[in-house]
Amino acid sequence: MDHLRVAVIGAGFMGKAHSLAWRSVAAVFGLTPRPALEVLCDVDAERTAAKAAEWGFARTTTDWRRVVEDPAIDAVSVTTPNHMHREIAVAALAAGKHVWCEKPMATALADAEAMARAAAGTPGLVAVLGYNFACNPALLHARRLIAEGAIGRIVDVRGQIDEDYLADPEQPWSWRLQKSEAGFGTIGDLTVHLLSMIHLLAGPVAELCASVETVHPTRPLADGSGRRAVDTDDIGHALLRFSSGAAGVIGSSRIAHGRKNVIRLEIHGDRGMIAFDQERFNELELYLAEGPRPTRGFRRILTGADHPPYGQFCPAPGHQLGFNDLKTIEAARFIDAIAGREEPVFGFAAGLTIERTIHAMARSAARRAWVRVEGEAG
Amino acid sequence: MDHLRVAVIGAGFMGKAHSLAWRSVAAVFGLTPRPALEVLCDVDAERTAAKAAEWGFARTTTDWRRVVEDPAIDAVSVTTPNHMHREIAVAALAAGKHVWCEKPMATALADAEAMARAAAGTPGLVAVLGYNFACNPALLHARRLIAEGAIGRIVDVRGQIDEDYLADPEQPWSWRLQKSEAGFGTIGDLTVHLLSMIHLLAGPVAELCASVETVHPTRPLADGSGRRAVDTDDIGHALLRFSSGAAGVIGSSRIAHGRKNVIRLEIHGDRGMIAFDQERFNELELYLAEGPRPTRGFRRILTGADHPPYGQFCPAPGHQLGFNDLKTIEAARFIDAIAGREEPVFGFAAGLTIERTIHAMARSAARRAWVRVEGEAG
Amino acid sequence: MDHLRVAVIGAGFMGKAHSLAWRSVAAVFGLTPRPALEVLCDVDAERTAAKAAEWGFARTTTDWRRVVEDPAIDAVSVTTPNHMHREIAVAALAAGKHVWCEKPMATALADAEAMARAAAGTPGLVAVLGYNFACNPALLHARRLIAEGAIGRIVDVRGQIDEDYLADPEQPWSWRLQKSEAGFGTIGDLTVHLLSMIHLLAGPVAELCASVETVHPTRPLADGSGRRAVDTDDIGHALLRFSSGAAGVIGSSRIAHGRKNVIRLEIHGDRGMIAFDQERFNELELYLAEGPRPTRGFRRILTGADHPPYGQFCPAPGHQLGFNDLKTIEAARFIDAIAGREEPVFGFAAGLTIERTIHAMARSAARRAWVRVEGEAG
Amino acid sequence: MDHLRVAVIGAGFMGKAHSLAWRSVAAVFGLTPRPALEVLCDVDAERTAAKAAEWGFARTTTDWRRVVEDPAIDAVSVTTPNHMHREIAVAALAAGKHVWCEKPMATALADAEAMARAAAGTPGLVAVLGYNFACNPALLHARRLIAEGAIGRIVDVRGQIDEDYLADPEQPWSWRLQKSEAGFGTIGDLTVHLLSMIHLLAGPVAELCASVETVHPTRPLADGSGRRAVDTDDIGHALLRFSSGAAGVIGSSRIAHGRKNVIRLEIHGDRGMIAFDQERFNELELYLAEGPRPTRGFRRILTGADHPPYGQFCPAPGHQLGFNDLKTIEAARFIDAIAGREEPVFGFAAGLTIERTIHAMARSAARRAWVRVEGEAG
Repeated sequence: MDHLRVAVIGAGFMGKAHSLAWRSVAAVFGLTPRPALEVLCDVDAERTAAKAAEWGFARTTTDWRRVVEDPAIDAVSVTTPNHMHREIAVAALAAGKHVWCEKPMATALADAEAMARAAAGTPGLVAVLGYNFACNPALLHARRLIAEGAIGRIVDVRGQIDEDYLADPEQPWSWRLQKSEAGFGTIGDLTVHLLSMIHLLAGPVAELCASVETVHPTRPLADGSGRRAVDTDDIGHALLRFSSGAAGVIGSSRIAHGRKNVIRLEIHGDRGMIAFDQERFNELELYLAEGPRPTRGFRRILTGADHPPYGQFCPAPGHQLGFNDLKTIEAARFIDAIAGREEPVFGFAAGLTIERTIHAMARSAARRAWVRVEGEAG
Repeated sequence: MDHLRVAVIGAGFMGKAHSLAWRSVAAVFGLTPRPALEVLCDVDAERTAAKAAEWGFARTTTDWRRVVEDPAIDAVSVTTPNHMHREIAVAALAAGKHVWCEKPMATALADAEAMARAAAGTPGLVAVLGYNFACNPALLHARRLIAEGAIGRIVDVRGQIDEDYLADPEQPWSWRLQKSEAGFGTIGDLTVHLLSMIHLLAGPVAELCASVETVHPTRPLADGSGRRAVDTDDIGHALLRFSSGAAGVIGSSRIAHGRKNVIRLEIHGDRGMIAFDQERFNELELYLAEGPRPTRGFRRILTGADHPPYGQFCPAPGHQLGFNDLKTIEAARFIDAIAGREEPVFGFAAGLTIERTIHAMARSAARRAWVRVEGEAG
Repeated sequence: MDHLRVAVIGAGFMGKAHSLAWRSVAAVFGLTPRPALEVLCDVDAERTAAKAAEWGFARTTTDWRRVVEDPAIDAVSVTTPNHMHREIAVAALAAGKHVWCEKPMATALADAEAMARAAAGTPGLVAVLGYNFACNPALLHARRLIAEGAIGRIVDVRGQIDEDYLADPEQPWSWRLQKSEAGFGTIGDLTVHLLSMIHLLAGPVAELCASVETVHPTRPLADGSGRRAVDTDDIGHALLRFSSGAAGVIGSSRIAHGRKNVIRLEIHGDRGMIAFDQERFNELELYLAEGPRPTRGFRRILTGADHPPYGQFCPAPGHQLGFNDLKTIEAARFIDAIAGREEPVFGFAAGLTIERTIHAMARSAARRAWVRVEGEAG
Repeated sequence: MDHLRVAVIGAGFMGKAHSLAWRSVAAVFGLTPRPALEVLCDVDAERTAAKAAEWGFARTTTDWRRVVEDPAIDAVSVTTPNHMHREIAVAALAAGKHVWCEKPMATALADAEAMARAAAGTPGLVAVLGYNFACNPALLHARRLIAEGAIGRIVDVRGQIDEDYLADPEQPWSWRLQKSEAGFGTIGDLTVHLLSMIHLLAGPVAELCASVETVHPTRPLADGSGRRAVDTDDIGHALLRFSSGAAGVIGSSRIAHGRKNVIRLEIHGDRGMIAFDQERFNELELYLAEGPRPTRGFRRILTGADHPPYGQFCPAPGHQLGFNDLKTIEAARFIDAIAGREEPVFGFAAGLTIERTIHAMARSAARRAWVRVEGEAG
């Protein structure tokens, strides 16, 4: 296969991010098969045509089923609203296409489970989730350090993900605030990112106890005609217990004034600590309990060519990658997986684990009790 | 009363801190009554005499009862091991002395309750707890900002307190690791500080769900003769619900490699946010959702004479106070309370609230359930 | 003109950066004319062919003159070694092509002057220099703030640019260390960046006094056969006087251990200050001497859609741009200038000013005296 | 000698700082001879009496000559306006008293030279200057690291000292702005601190080229009756050449909005770097070019008992010292020198070097030329 013929379904924020990644990945990584941007699909024909021209797609459609049925497509990016993920992803897999689906996986746990089953049932196809932050060279380096034992056994984990896009209580109502369309609020939109990164570094969460709530119960309607109820969560916090036995605690919010992309992680080992913040994602902090005591301290490591695959983008350290570069790394990993060169970072099975974790958070919050992440025993 | 005749019981770390504060407070603040350093008390006569000479006490004793009975003493600093706090404090109050007792208040909740009752029963006397971090001008400024509504209604609180004094699993066993002598571990030593600061800014916690555990179950004996069990906690995390309705989540550890004095606080309001870290305690971060959007950001405010009582120490901003200066502010507040000029920052009643909160943490962790901080209903 | 037919001369670090920018710019910005990647040119035919395939060029050549003479090329990226810039750029302009030339402009001042003359003589063509850091939304925002008077009159400027790629004294000798091939050392490679950013914010430097020196006078040959003399500079510092009357001082080094991409700027106004560091280039610090004194502090502003053209890359603030994104913005500005929509950020005339400034640094250092940046009077 | 009988001349900001240090030093350090606070001297009898009562002095006077002549005084703190330093210090030394004189040493170089001669002529007496920032455990640790070769040979030095106490152009005129009373402006008030710290770490400056200027040439009179000329400097920048051969560059300003106590230092060695900022003076940054490259980074070292004499104040790391604690360390060093236990940190001879350096800055700025720090040859 010389080329990987790709389609992108959804031409919004993430549709553009996928398209940019598809455009750049072969040039950045020098890998094969090279993607060919075949089809862009979204509901508004005119706008989709315009975006296809801008982003470099050969053709367009307004019907995602046409994409899925198209024999000239090898791989599909799914960047639609969340409640459509299941249907599209399952159909695409059934039609023999590799799938790169945005997070969160689905709005209902049954949907995510169906997607994972579909992926398991098509072992020759690659089905991955768009956990772009997990592909950051700084985090991949952290994972290597942990695997090598640099900080010893993990004993505790701290995490925080905060944004402020709904911090203003008078921010108008939108579909994101309605459970039937959006699924969860903060925990589906933000906490899943945090959990994906934690999963990468510290493994799966076995049980948890969560507090999940809507702080601003109504929002004004954009047309000024009154207020409408909000039934998705603004805040989600949890105590964690990892399968490894480690403890943990996390907080998350979409109403945290001033926070634009805070994702703070601390991995506490019995020989050192790793700390990280997504707002400065080209940096990693590392403390090692070794060497003379008076010179010990947290090191601020700036990523560079010593932290693959940073060097694919730029040979000079400290020059920094951007958000879209992380998406390009994700695309490279997806292609590598398709070519059989490497395991995917977040396949549907791993993605289901993240979904189960946030559903466990919701269940725990409703019951006000500790619950197990897997199954019904909790 | 021209002078306040003081005694310090306990000549260790905190005994020195109190003594230095007593020496400096009148000179720094120009206040009255001026303390007169009358008696230093500790168990080793020779060492106590040496310390008394260094620190400037007029006389010494090895029996704390002599201090309490001494009619020439007006106020007593209690800096003994925690399990002695109750007996000394109650006796001192009964003998008509003002009491400044180090934290944690006591090792058993019943002891803390007895102390609070004793204080309530002697309304003419001032009984305060040594929550020195709460007297920091940066935090007092934060409290003013919150009271003035700068960040609006508090909706969420994040907290973290971490040190690494027991992070090395081979750090030898000591009495601090034994419940019968130390009471709690991390939650009694560290979390109480965090909770005192949170209490100051966000009010009391109504209910919580906690995870409290001992990560390193044994420690080597210092003499190399084997290992001994640890029965105090290394880690304490909790989900919080404040009386105000706000949510919150905290983490705490004494085994957090590289953390020397991390106490991070975030107070999320519906109009802004305040953030703080004790490792840089002369700074306060403030985000206000006002003014042109492109110039909004967290401000790093350096304390100075604009943030009382900083100016008592130094007229120049950014020159910074130290740990012992915070203790001196505490001494000034204690004297102000004795002179009837101001309410104490942390009286025994407020201190009991903190104790109840950590006992609720322990109870919640044992039950693996949410509990109310007050009473048995939880 | 539907398409802008582009060639890239030089297939190294910067050749890749230009190629990636050419690939992405139309998709990111949705602008026209869209670039068509026609020719990649470098000396090694085989490697160039491989890179052309990776980066998406239609054809290749090993002779830059073929590029310049090619009627099917509209614009040329010049990313060759510095001493070739003049010849290629002048020939390309003479042949009617727009030119985007990497920095530094040339190795000799006469070359830079010839390039500026060539550009001035072809007013219908756009000739710009690759000062990518100057296109950062954070810096563009700083420029707007200054223009609007947010920090008042500029009174002082501080600057620092430091890397460590030659910090190890035993780093082997290379052509970069030889004046005849590289021109200057640190001041040609690094200080020009700093000066371009300062120029953008504070205008031209009128006179200066500099210290420029080679700290490690010899380096080992890579083949172990001995050591060879270094005749390019490791360090360049200068006192500045701006045409506006403002003072300034800068430092620069390629032997600064631990510095990966430090470019620190402080613009001191009489009503506020702007501070910036390229190692965290998605942030801007702003201090305004307004509002209540106790709440004043430096604000850390994270760039987002409020800071154009960030929003072209990502609608979400704090998600961050990377080094290659800055290059894409440069490409967009170049195309905008070609289309007559906007003035270029760094045309050859402005570029010559930067060259004159570093040549003035060298002259000043040699004379150990203040010199004027323009002409020989200094 | 059991006690060191001390007098403090000047009861302003620094008079209080000295008095607090005298009160605390023996208790903090447990050293002898213990200071006895005998006399406080200032011009206003009533205010001085009040301050003496607050600060704990036995008696007062309004005539500094009485202090100097007093046989019951062993040591004198000189905290008067700068132009009086010479007369008092020389007289005190002549009368056999140890002298601790605030910085800057004097307003005229001849005065500083006379003071150094007086100190040299009384070898049994200790005469030191109040460079308190130089006694910071973090800086003393940096000095040890450098002496041990941790960062190798020093090749470059960067420094910056900035405050904003005169940043507002409409800040009223005061005596500090008049050369005849204040001597220099920024360079006498601030740059001397920076130079003292640089001196401690990198040794003496051999030659320099400076730019020193008054940015705001007039200031409004406080009574609203008009404006008055300013003839002291607002800004002082310099290129440095150290006796060791190292290069350097510094900037300083008292009109730097938002800067409260910035004193940034970078010591560039050929094996590593040390960086420091006085606004966070309990921290030291250290980069060592050793160990695996992917884990290299600047370490943020928090001072603690591993960094003497921090442990005298507090056994717990990261709890932080304050400005007045630095003054207490200075007092301890002064007493140690009197007792013959240790060399003073900044004796009058070293202090004269700093004075010569700022006078060289003024001379260089006037001549617009490089000058040697010593003598007239420059």
